Amino acid sequence: MKIDKTKKFLIVGLGLLGGSYAKSLSKQDYYVTAITKDQKDIDYALEHGFINKGSAFVDESLVKEADIIVFALYPHVFVEWIKEYGNLISPKTVITDVTGVKSCMVYEIQSLLPSGVEFISAHPMAGKEKSGVEYADDSIFANANYIVVPTEKNSLDIIELCGDLGETLGFREISVLSPEKHDKMIAFLSQLTHCIAVSLMCACDEPDLERYTGDSFRDLTRIANINDEMWSELFLANREILLDEMDNYRTAFDKLYNTIKNDNRDEMREMMRLSTARRKKFDKKKGQI
Amino acid sequence: MKIDKTKKFLIVGLGLLGGSYAKSLSKQDYYVTAITKDQKDIDYALEHGFINKGSAFVDESLVKEADIIVFALYPHVFVEWIKEYGNLISPKTVITDVTGVKSCMVYEIQSLLPSGVEFISAHPMAGKEKSGVEYADDSIFANANYIVVPTEKNSLDIIELCGDLGETLGFREISVLSPEKHDKMIAFLSQLTHCIAVSLMCACDEPDLERYTGDSFRDLTRIANINDEMWSELFLANREILLDEMDNYRTAFDKLYNTIKNDNRDEMREMMRLSTARRKKFDKKKGQI
Repeated sequence: MKIDKTKKFLIVGLGLLGGSYAKSLSKQDYYVTAITKDQKDIDYALEHGFINKGSAFVDESLVKEADIIVFALYPHVFVEWIKEYGNLISPKTVITDVTGVKSCMVYEIQSLLPSGVEFISAHPMAGKEKSGVEYADDSIFANANYIVVPTEKNSLDIIELCGDLGETLGFREISVLSPEKHDKMIAFLSQLTHCIAVSLMCACDEPDLERYTGDSFRDLTRIANINDEMWSELFLANREILLDEMDNYRTAFDKLYNTIKNDNRDEMREMMRLSTARRKKFDKKKGQI
Repeated sequence: MKIDKTKKFLIVGLGLLGGSYAKSLSKQDYYVTAITKDQKDIDYALEHGFINKGSAFVDESLVKEADIIVFALYPHVFVEWIKEYGNLISPKTVITDVTGVKSCMVYEIQSLLPSGVEFISAHPMAGKEKSGVEYADDSIFANANYIVVPTEKNSLDIIELCGDLGETLGFREISVLSPEKHDKMIAFLSQLTHCIAVSLMCACDEPDLERYTGDSFRDLTRIANINDEMWSELFLANREILLDEMDNYRTAFDKLYNTIKNDNRDEMREMMRLSTARRKKFDKKKGQI
């Protein structure tokens, strides 16, 4: 199933990501509405042409008329919303999300929804170190990855529709992963990297370090500028898997530590060569930004 | 003392950094010669106008005529060179270097030099993930930091001259640090970050990770593409200090690990807020690339 211009979108939660979805879709002439808690965010989105209509309370008519609802909320807020208002959603509506952790909530949401409403989860791997609809920017999707995260309850048609939404938004690569596999990938590729950057910034209280720094430190700690409310929730929602990945990483770090301590140059260089070979696969391809 | 156009430069070691020094200085019409082990690198540098003359053996006349000699060699090769050929250097010659670790060799070099020859150490904090004179690029100095690393044996005049060389090359900020302080800074800001990136790449053998990655992982592991010969030498040359910094970092990482394990959201958020506040100081200023 493909996205077409007859589809009416409702975005619930106009933050950076919800706002960027709205901006991209409305630029392409889709009909887009929004529900979010602050009236000023609705006003901003209306003024900038991101949405056709919006409401700072849960307006039943907006929920009922929507064909596709995108939830761009914190995980626990998403679950609470569905518990309280899920019964307002019309049959045949497809709902999707942008949540960064999956196993902890995908099955629960699917079990809470009224019959005929299908939830297909997705993770757009795009963002900024800023939050709020005023930073909405649909260019963050270009060259980014988009992961569709179905369960056995999802139909092939709707999995395809969700991938098509990723393409419509301009993502470069669309993949499909199970919730468990997704959470493991994300624990390693995203959550662990944030843990590392935060730990590194907390490890040294020397002043004036910035006067002596090179770009390695700067690049490595870019994400140490972190939204503590959102990330603490994401870490805890994926706790067991993240702790496993942190253990694996610490094992590798300790191995390298011991090669230095024991003057074991050969094993040290072997780790560096493995690291170099693996890192090459992550180089952006020609034309990628 | 200032650098002026009467000064004759000799670069020993035409790799990425030595080549970039030669390129920058010759573009500014300084007289530049080079000694390096491969004739093809001399040929390349001559063809591209980086040097006026060069030799693939230790040509006594090049050493004798030089006013300023820049050593761009691996630390142990630099020490060996001085032991073997130091006696060829004329009195009143100033020698400097680009070595990434200092305490392990600065005092030794100073004690080996003939009377009247002054060694002032420096660390240009610039580079690329490439090596070789064919990647020489004097634009890497713009917006980078340059650290002058004197000992008590150095005269104020020569410390000033070395800073002036950094300015002549186009570095953005010139600082002065003792060898001990330098090595601690570098252990934290540069060596530890390389240890982290290498460990992270070695921690997971899952294939196809690059299909799911966001830019956080890419930025954090850029330096995991590493010259194993050079970095293993730098790590071991600064072993005790680096191990200390690795210990401090691991303490912070374990603290964060425990906040996740113990569901201690408040302490986790406190670490994230400290990290965010400290990281802001590293943001590049307006106009910095």
